[in-house]
Amino acid sequence: MTTSLSSQPPQAAFEPLDPAFAARVRASFGRQKAMALIGATMTRVEPGFCEIELPFRDDLTQQKGYVHGGIIGMIADSACGYAAYSLMPADSSLVTVEYKINIMAPAKGGLLVARGEVIKPGRTLTITSGEVTARQDGRSVLVAAMQQTLMTLPDTPDTPD
Amino acid sequence: MTTSLSSQPPQAAFEPLDPAFAARVRASFGRQKAMALIGATMTRVEPGFCEIELPFRDDLTQQKGYVHGGIIGMIADSACGYAAYSLMPADSSLVTVEYKINIMAPAKGGLLVARGEVIKPGRTLTITSGEVTARQDGRSVLVAAMQQTLMTLPDTPDTPD
Amino acid sequence: MTTSLSSQPPQAAFEPLDPAFAARVRASFGRQKAMALIGATMTRVEPGFCEIELPFRDDLTQQKGYVHGGIIGMIADSACGYAAYSLMPADSSLVTVEYKINIMAPAKGGLLVARGEVIKPGRTLTITSGEVTARQDGRSVLVAAMQQTLMTLPDTPDTPD
Amino acid sequence: MTTSLSSQPPQAAFEPLDPAFAARVRASFGRQKAMALIGATMTRVEPGFCEIELPFRDDLTQQKGYVHGGIIGMIADSACGYAAYSLMPADSSLVTVEYKINIMAPAKGGLLVARGEVIKPGRTLTITSGEVTARQDGRSVLVAAMQQTLMTLPDTPDTPD
Repeated sequence: MTTSLSSQPPQAAFEPLDPAFAARVRASFGRQKAMALIGATMTRVEPGFCEIELPFRDDLTQQKGYVHGGIIGMIADSACGYAAYSLMPADSSLVTVEYKINIMAPAKGGLLVARGEVIKPGRTLTITSGEVTARQDGRSVLVAAMQQTLMTLPDTPDTPD
Repeated sequence: MTTSLSSQPPQAAFEPLDPAFAARVRASFGRQKAMALIGATMTRVEPGFCEIELPFRDDLTQQKGYVHGGIIGMIADSACGYAAYSLMPADSSLVTVEYKINIMAPAKGGLLVARGEVIKPGRTLTITSGEVTARQDGRSVLVAAMQQTLMTLPDTPDTPD
Repeated sequence: MTTSLSSQPPQAAFEPLDPAFAARVRASFGRQKAMALIGATMTRVEPGFCEIELPFRDDLTQQKGYVHGGIIGMIADSACGYAAYSLMPADSSLVTVEYKINIMAPAKGGLLVARGEVIKPGRTLTITSGEVTARQDGRSVLVAAMQQTLMTLPDTPDTPD
Repeated sequence: MTTSLSSQPPQAAFEPLDPAFAARVRASFGRQKAMALIGATMTRVEPGFCEIELPFRDDLTQQKGYVHGGIIGMIADSACGYAAYSLMPADSSLVTVEYKINIMAPAKGGLLVARGEVIKPGRTLTITSGEVTARQDGRSVLVAAMQQTLMTLPDTPDTPD
């Protein structure tokens, strides 16, 4: 496509409020036991951006042997959420307000890669966009697209009570 | 609230196309290995309605010890999807086109109950609405609300290739 | 349908924080020039509930002569938003954070009725659900369903700067 | 931001099925009386891409003098829908299945520009992504982001019955 939304003037790079954002984000992800349950790992985190990978496993599937749409939602939710969290203050926590996901192709094997990025940071609310691709046999297929809203909880621990 | 959307004239009860819908839906759910992984069970299925229960488990949590929003999405996605599938023809399969979920309260323990119902059945597309409640200590708290779109695949097996 | 989400225990009626909520909501709606442009009127407002009516007009249509999906979104957005605003403090303003709408049937004539209700009020965020029906020749058809998120702006005038 | 979703390998340019797609899309838009009502014009159409402009008008506003969120949804819905329609067969029609929109900033004046692009074309369903920016005094501000699902109706006239 010769034109696209990205023909808009690029947004300025995001400046993280917390210079130690990457360690904070990775530590938070490390406490997500649900990510360990499904075998997901965080492979990249940058200001306003996060990537999570999930190798195909038979116990993640729905009735037809594809990865369950809810599992695809899980990794997209986490990738988008941590993209947002990378820009939040050091002493804050975050909650997912809502997300919307389109599932566009089945994921039958290989590696799922979820990427989230911030499209609008804010003091209270942050809006993100994400996508999930399936990589197998040298091919990359777009599996899902997400649009998500998150809320910053200032001065709130990001750990269990 | 003295008035509500339900003050609309009630929709006629849905007539399932497949008299054996309940067995078909339960068999399909039984093939969802992802539901077994998280410990979810299907507790009710009626024409255009489905209920799934998920007991709290520590390995389903996010960084603060609440059930991961993606897990909440998983059971809502399945409850809504099987509500739709209950009304589809016997030889059909279904795919989730998209869903949108609002997370309204954290789920910290007890039992999660996801309920889905069809709001508009169709030959190609079916629209559903769902909610997830957390039940603990005799209280019931609304945790999430979903709106979802599904597509019928006619003459398609609902089993792995 | 013999069972439905409404088999859940009913939520307690909402208590408005502002006893003069109805006049405040109607005055705010009266400032929405876009509603006047399309010919929409507010027909009911109760705590956590709002109804807006829109008679069919030829200049509201899309390419096939049906009411434009964006117009349907407009009245649903306003009905849901004012359902939320009815529960907010007297000196607050509100903004729509996001909404999702499914269009389920075309609206070709008659009267469109949009109803919104609060499903989860909150100090910062309120979640609503809405539907649009078309009434014509004594029949009522479900045209659209919405799920929406709104944010309260405390101590903020609800009028132009 | 040094990395982004666009670091994905770019999708191949879309090949329109109908070489006369641009004239067909513009003719369809010309039949949308609702776009004339609000003063919107189609400024660009390319395979899988469409742009619609809307100058600020006082009669498009909500209670605080900003452009009504539903109006923003209208032009985004049309821009995304016509991006999809550009790739559909000559004798088809389309319907909006659903859309989700985040409103991220108020639009108080100047020019609104809605851009839609196809992220996944399909025989039955097409998924699009869109954004609305406000341009005023040489500045461009991101106002809204949309994710949308459309359905092709094959062998169906795109004109009133």
